[in-house]
Amino acid sequence: MKKFNENKIIKNITRLFNFKSNFKFTDDLLLLKGIGDDSAYWKDTNYAYCTSTDSLVENVHFKLDYFSAIDIGKKSIAVNLSDIAAMGATPLGMLINLGITKKQDERWIDDFYKGVYELSNSYNSPLIGGDLVYSPHLFISVTCFGYRKLDQNSNTEIFLDRSKSNEDDILYVTGFLGDSRAGLDILNSDIYHTPYKTHEQKLIQSHIYKKPRLEVGLKLIENGITNCIDISDGLLIDSERLAVESEISININQKSLPISENLKLAFPDNYLNYALIGGEDYELLFSAPKSMNSLLLDVFEDLNIKLSQIGEIRKGQSEIFLDNELTDVKGWDHFQNQL
Amino acid sequence: MKKFNENKIIKNITRLFNFKSNFKFTDDLLLLKGIGDDSAYWKDTNYAYCTSTDSLVENVHFKLDYFSAIDIGKKSIAVNLSDIAAMGATPLGMLINLGITKKQDERWIDDFYKGVYELSNSYNSPLIGGDLVYSPHLFISVTCFGYRKLDQNSNTEIFLDRSKSNEDDILYVTGFLGDSRAGLDILNSDIYHTPYKTHEQKLIQSHIYKKPRLEVGLKLIENGITNCIDISDGLLIDSERLAVESEISININQKSLPISENLKLAFPDNYLNYALIGGEDYELLFSAPKSMNSLLLDVFEDLNIKLSQIGEIRKGQSEIFLDNELTDVKGWDHFQNQL
Repeated sequence: MKKFNENKIIKNITRLFNFKSNFKFTDDLLLLKGIGDDSAYWKDTNYAYCTSTDSLVENVHFKLDYFSAIDIGKKSIAVNLSDIAAMGATPLGMLINLGITKKQDERWIDDFYKGVYELSNSYNSPLIGGDLVYSPHLFISVTCFGYRKLDQNSNTEIFLDRSKSNEDDILYVTGFLGDSRAGLDILNSDIYHTPYKTHEQKLIQSHIYKKPRLEVGLKLIENGITNCIDISDGLLIDSERLAVESEISININQKSLPISENLKLAFPDNYLNYALIGGEDYELLFSAPKSMNSLLLDVFEDLNIKLSQIGEIRKGQSEIFLDNELTDVKGWDHFQNQL
Repeated sequence: MKKFNENKIIKNITRLFNFKSNFKFTDDLLLLKGIGDDSAYWKDTNYAYCTSTDSLVENVHFKLDYFSAIDIGKKSIAVNLSDIAAMGATPLGMLINLGITKKQDERWIDDFYKGVYELSNSYNSPLIGGDLVYSPHLFISVTCFGYRKLDQNSNTEIFLDRSKSNEDDILYVTGFLGDSRAGLDILNSDIYHTPYKTHEQKLIQSHIYKKPRLEVGLKLIENGITNCIDISDGLLIDSERLAVESEISININQKSLPISENLKLAFPDNYLNYALIGGEDYELLFSAPKSMNSLLLDVFEDLNIKLSQIGEIRKGQSEIFLDNELTDVKGWDHFQNQL
């Protein structure tokens, strides 16, 4: 079985395209971030736009055993809108390419788009186009767009950016960690049998039904936060990305990690692993100066969303510490695992 | 084998999303075209943006028997930039999602992106992001963006639009018709054996190497042309789309169709079929008032691109006539043929 080194491939691509920040299309149309970031973005005189894309492949990213057509429609959009959330942008719309096989019928396709519609509608992000093709293997590619109206008098960032976390900041994360991956493992494991217990059902639900944190991203940027990343690949791996791009180090206090009672009940021996490297969470990770702590607590109380202080930003060269001990970051890398 | 009705599915989706033109995100940010058109587009105070997406699936849209990694990289981009060309937009960048199988190695992936780079570079359309996933079946999804700086003093269209062809206009098409599909059929047919004859090689090359007509789209909009469509699905089927959206009818003069000597040599008995319903051409079809004819001839002489007058626009209800006889439009519908 061949092994791919995704990071090496992406480095090759980035080198090939030799992307320069501040690529000028016209005097007032500037590409500010290109390849190598969560979302690319550009600005003109009055607006900035960001865009992000993901593909989901059957039996790689989801199984139809436990994802109904409606739910996979919802998940496709939620995963992608999570990138827009991490930018602090407002959704502008999305494109969906659906590669369907002979197993899907018109009913399945209709249901898929009903799921898409449900999220599209609740986040005011219209489906503006796409492509419908036959494929021997089911796949979905989604591209979302976000915008921000520029305020010439404000000194907030254009978008949240994973390169703008600062030394001495507090590290925050939204929601609970690890539940989604735990739910996935329960679905994939033979040792569980339906009917699931209540706490197992709740973990499964947190895998199936994701909520992009759009309202959080918008509140962060409004309140002067500069940086953010969504932790879809796992807390450790995404913390390292934040550390690399921001040229800082991060210490995480394991006792402060937000772990649900459901996760502790289901996996009493390794819930910390789920929280640290589980992935699939789509929560937001960001840092802010200590002076903003009480403001942030108020903002999240108003939003009615759990916010946890899980560590701090330190001077350093992209090291990740767990309880002050240097750690070797490993995560579930979809790509490495599958090939 | 199940039959899908792509038009019915798309109608269902369009109804579900209940798209309204002039959807206002803010006072000065308007979505002008959503689902159901070639490209979606929106405008703010100073710029308009369009976006379009396509997926290519191995053995559905291309075969690796005759597409090298570099060539499939180029083709993916060319197909998508053709939609930007048909809008009269300038490319702003693109996203690529690559679903790779165990058969592709790092060399293949590098070569693919070299092909992407070649087109990206020659059309100044940077690769700004994407997704790289494992898939049991090779697929490529490409999303391109285009822009146009708005000139408040000009009364040209924001973008070329397939709904804006007018009665009494002359119908024009760029390049030659049918060569690309003929090349594909030669590649797929057992009766041909390499070494191919020169005219067969030329037809094959016109299938493998596509050139998006970006310079044409820009010249059309600059010169006050209002409508355009790229004829990737075949002249008849795309003429009907222009007729339906513009609420007019079209007469095509078969003697005026631009047919290459290579196509006549390879298919002396059915070259007209290739020209009418072959598809895969990615040439531009548009109409313009008779008064603009000499201007257009000058413009295309400067561009050094072949332009042919192939018919005229008539009052009517989306009928397509061939030499004044009403015809029943049929095309190669990828979707219907494959499922």
